[in-house]
Amino acid sequence: MATETHQAIAAEVTAEATFAGWLDRFTAALQAADVAGTTALLADDCWWRDLLALTWDLGTCRGRDKVATMLGDHLAPDSFANIRMTTEFGPRYQGGDNEIVEGFITFETPLGFGRGAVRLLQEDGDWVAWTVMTELDDLRDHERAIGAHRSRGPRHNSAGSGGRNWLQKRQEHVRYAGSDPDVVVIGAGQGGLSVAANLGLMGVDTLILEKSERVGDGWRKRYHSLVLHDPVWADHLPYMPYPDSWPVYCPKDKIADWFESYASAMELNVWTSAEMTSSAYDEATGRWTLRVRTPNGERELHPRDVILATGAAGEPNVPAVPGRDRFAGTSYHSSQHSSAQNWAGKKAVVVGACNSGHDIAQDLYEAGADVTLVQRSSTHIISQEHGIPAIFGSNFVEGGPPTKYADLLASGTPWPLVLEMAKEGVKETARKDAELLAALDAVGFKRNDGPDGTGLMGYALAYGGGYYINVGCSQLIADGKIKLAQGSGLAEFTPEGIRLEDGRTLEADLVVLATGYKNMRETARRLFGDEVADRLPLVLGIGADGEIGGLYRRTGHPAFWYMGGPLAWVRIYSKHLALQITAKHADLQTP
Amino acid sequence: MATETHQAIAAEVTAEATFAGWLDRFTAALQAADVAGTTALLADDCWWRDLLALTWDLGTCRGRDKVATMLGDHLAPDSFANIRMTTEFGPRYQGGDNEIVEGFITFETPLGFGRGAVRLLQEDGDWVAWTVMTELDDLRDHERAIGAHRSRGPRHNSAGSGGRNWLQKRQEHVRYAGSDPDVVVIGAGQGGLSVAANLGLMGVDTLILEKSERVGDGWRKRYHSLVLHDPVWADHLPYMPYPDSWPVYCPKDKIADWFESYASAMELNVWTSAEMTSSAYDEATGRWTLRVRTPNGERELHPRDVILATGAAGEPNVPAVPGRDRFAGTSYHSSQHSSAQNWAGKKAVVVGACNSGHDIAQDLYEAGADVTLVQRSSTHIISQEHGIPAIFGSNFVEGGPPTKYADLLASGTPWPLVLEMAKEGVKETARKDAELLAALDAVGFKRNDGPDGTGLMGYALAYGGGYYINVGCSQLIADGKIKLAQGSGLAEFTPEGIRLEDGRTLEADLVVLATGYKNMRETARRLFGDEVADRLPLVLGIGADGEIGGLYRRTGHPAFWYMGGPLAWVRIYSKHLALQITAKHADLQTP
Repeated sequence: MATETHQAIAAEVTAEATFAGWLDRFTAALQAADVAGTTALLADDCWWRDLLALTWDLGTCRGRDKVATMLGDHLAPDSFANIRMTTEFGPRYQGGDNEIVEGFITFETPLGFGRGAVRLLQEDGDWVAWTVMTELDDLRDHERAIGAHRSRGPRHNSAGSGGRNWLQKRQEHVRYAGSDPDVVVIGAGQGGLSVAANLGLMGVDTLILEKSERVGDGWRKRYHSLVLHDPVWADHLPYMPYPDSWPVYCPKDKIADWFESYASAMELNVWTSAEMTSSAYDEATGRWTLRVRTPNGERELHPRDVILATGAAGEPNVPAVPGRDRFAGTSYHSSQHSSAQNWAGKKAVVVGACNSGHDIAQDLYEAGADVTLVQRSSTHIISQEHGIPAIFGSNFVEGGPPTKYADLLASGTPWPLVLEMAKEGVKETARKDAELLAALDAVGFKRNDGPDGTGLMGYALAYGGGYYINVGCSQLIADGKIKLAQGSGLAEFTPEGIRLEDGRTLEADLVVLATGYKNMRETARRLFGDEVADRLPLVLGIGADGEIGGLYRRTGHPAFWYMGGPLAWVRIYSKHLALQITAKHADLQTP
Repeated sequence: MATETHQAIAAEVTAEATFAGWLDRFTAALQAADVAGTTALLADDCWWRDLLALTWDLGTCRGRDKVATMLGDHLAPDSFANIRMTTEFGPRYQGGDNEIVEGFITFETPLGFGRGAVRLLQEDGDWVAWTVMTELDDLRDHERAIGAHRSRGPRHNSAGSGGRNWLQKRQEHVRYAGSDPDVVVIGAGQGGLSVAANLGLMGVDTLILEKSERVGDGWRKRYHSLVLHDPVWADHLPYMPYPDSWPVYCPKDKIADWFESYASAMELNVWTSAEMTSSAYDEATGRWTLRVRTPNGERELHPRDVILATGAAGEPNVPAVPGRDRFAGTSYHSSQHSSAQNWAGKKAVVVGACNSGHDIAQDLYEAGADVTLVQRSSTHIISQEHGIPAIFGSNFVEGGPPTKYADLLASGTPWPLVLEMAKEGVKETARKDAELLAALDAVGFKRNDGPDGTGLMGYALAYGGGYYINVGCSQLIADGKIKLAQGSGLAEFTPEGIRLEDGRTLEADLVVLATGYKNMRETARRLFGDEVADRLPLVLGIGADGEIGGLYRRTGHPAFWYMGGPLAWVRIYSKHLALQITAKHADLQTP
């Protein structure tokens, strides 16, 4: 046993020595603001992703030339000070032949404290960096109130408290009777909660407006049988991990209840049943005027910033199909499907063959309905069993790296590289799912491999949907238990059902329009009007800078921000959005 | 930087090599069931604490002879199999001159999986064990559903679910309409919640009865200004750590809300506003019959075991003082004090000078009352600032060991050794608090150093009280802002106030009896009757076996168990109680 351990330590020393040696040279080059010297320590096909640390923006450069340009624009001798290798986790070898060394660093910048993740590989016998990620972690003097910066808590009978205890002060604060929040967040889903938590920890007074009755209703009100598709290790909210007993795949009501616990434990200010009814931004004062309908009457708020966190998937896309008014049955968008219980023995048609369409079709089938799924074009299909582990890799698994380092490895992999790497997983998953896929092919179901072969990741980054993670519906389709109408879209409603573009008719008591969602910018348009929306980028899609469109960064409107995405994204990137807003409110000189 | 790291690793290798070398010899001796060979690897004044791993009991032996007897009674070649050194944390040097090596182990026993904590020191040039702690961590085939044993969670539309989703199944289960829980826990405080969580994870169906309206009311209904005295690092509940933002000292309502979140996230079955009205145990069937008053009517339950978790401090001790009926003012026990707001400008007398007495006196003073504190004998006084860190040491601090290892170090320090080590902290705290203590002496306040100089730990282990952790009241007494009536107890109530035994009279509008609590066995007596209570041990006090009286172990009644204590105790020892009950229900052959 002792011998085994010594060998393990010897291997660590070697990965660590390799990393430390590279880092010594890298540190010297950076601190001399030596662009050529720095890029000489990078691989030919290198990636550098900076998240606010150097460039005060989110952005990815690929290749030595582009990195050199970026460094030339930004690098100064004090850009990265006090660079230290992290030994709490890593450096470690990765890859079958130890061809990669992964390591983590901390550093200081003129604005605060940063972290980084680096992957080294060998080129011509030298260890050079294949990927570098540098991020701002904390603003100096605005460090998040966690760990060593946590509050001591209220004192017993503290003088000057006017006899009010912690609870009374919390209750009074959240009323905002004589005060305004600095930031208003629209929506108490994972995006709104996580950015509000970060802002609160940075000392920025933040109020969340949630139109439903309870925090978590965004999940709670979704369809009856919904269970999260992403595994627990990827799904933690920031700062408050799930208990070790949390199931791998969490049912919707359980995650919804956790959101309520999160809002309470993180002391988030939330108004539920509160809906913004009008907004106006005054460029001169830098303040919004928001009118809000609440159970206690109409209120007016004057925050400096608003964050739209109503869901990156955006508004329901309800196609304007003729004849819907003469349809004798029931029809609704997939977002309004809550339970299949009433449709036993009835005819149901689900239009749209991505995740919602499949899940709702299965829900209706298992409730005893006669179900037809309408597939107009093609769908990317993976099994949950094979496809999800291929996407999350060895990062988000039982016994994987601590979440902090798993997240650095994730954000240390630029999105274009994520997509590149996804292609192999798509092929591997298809091989493992071959039997199921062949059965789908046999009934005429049309499949694809995602944009440019990038599968689910490509679809998720481009549109937030477009795929189906099979949890049973594909087999029902292959077995003919759920009927398939392939190759044609919805032309019109008839009194008895629907007619497809190719003329086929389908009788229906229920028509579910699983027709997806509009871009989140359309939600901004509905809530804030054209003047605001016309300044905003589209949300999602990977831009020329290698980053996701719209999310977690400046939008073109000085006081409007988008927040959203799956749990893993918001856990990682809510901090970056909060850092930008905190710096603005603190009037920090940013690059 | 690289050089520093290599030195740190070199030091680790040495501590690790020392520990590994000792462990190789220890393993060989244990697996040969060689008692003499094993004890030869222990220090002269060694300690071995076993928590169910070897002896199927909680117990501590001091010295080679007593350890040899214990091993002679229990050690077999398969008692400790597959012994492994832990390298996730430790082995590490401790002490100014690296005179201690701390290390952790895992092993298997005939019943399951165990862990251990060992401290080595040098005697005559050899490294030998000063403290050994061995504990059972999991029963084989009843492993707690955490980490690799967590559930996958419900499947989407899982066949056979009858269309009921996770929420509906949870709601139905907790009704117990056609079923009985295996175990009933009385009380949803930290003790009840933590043991119910452990039992649930081990697969034992457990129902908590809580007489208040909400989980957490045990804290919520305490006095207005209450803030926890123990720091956050010691206060985690098992399996669900507080967020990193949690304050060092948590206000009562915040911890109460967390308890509600805990019950939800850990899927505990709780009936609130539910009070047991009668009980009977049938030895023949091994079942209790409990009658329970609930908001939905009377119910009868037939669990195999009951756990009393109403608070280790027990019933309020209300002295039978003559004349209380003719007192014109208000009087209540300290446990009923909730707010001082109504006593501004009134005369208040607080009888009893331990923690509750001081905190309530301060609360009343700060609300504007004219307060007199009656101190009959003497009190152990420490400041929160100096005294609490001295008690929790380097284990439960920011940047301290992960809770898992801090707990192993805590449970790896037998209680008699904790008390021995506490004496130095008491002296050091008194030196740091010298100014405050002198000021108290000057006004005639009587102080002591706790039982045999062991301070707070000695009082807490013996009685659950008897001290005051100063958060401001001592200064108020020293300054004469709170008046002191020293040296005499309460003789009787008068119409206008109270008369002390020495004849002094004190006028009062309010008399608070901060007169402590009875032993928890008296709670058992009130709830379960004399027949049960007469079989039970007293709770608290360190017995000849070095363990706390009554808690976390067999009680003398085959189906009655005590649970309680501060958060740190229940986090650590709720597992051991649950293991014993799980083994009983699984009919395991235990030693």
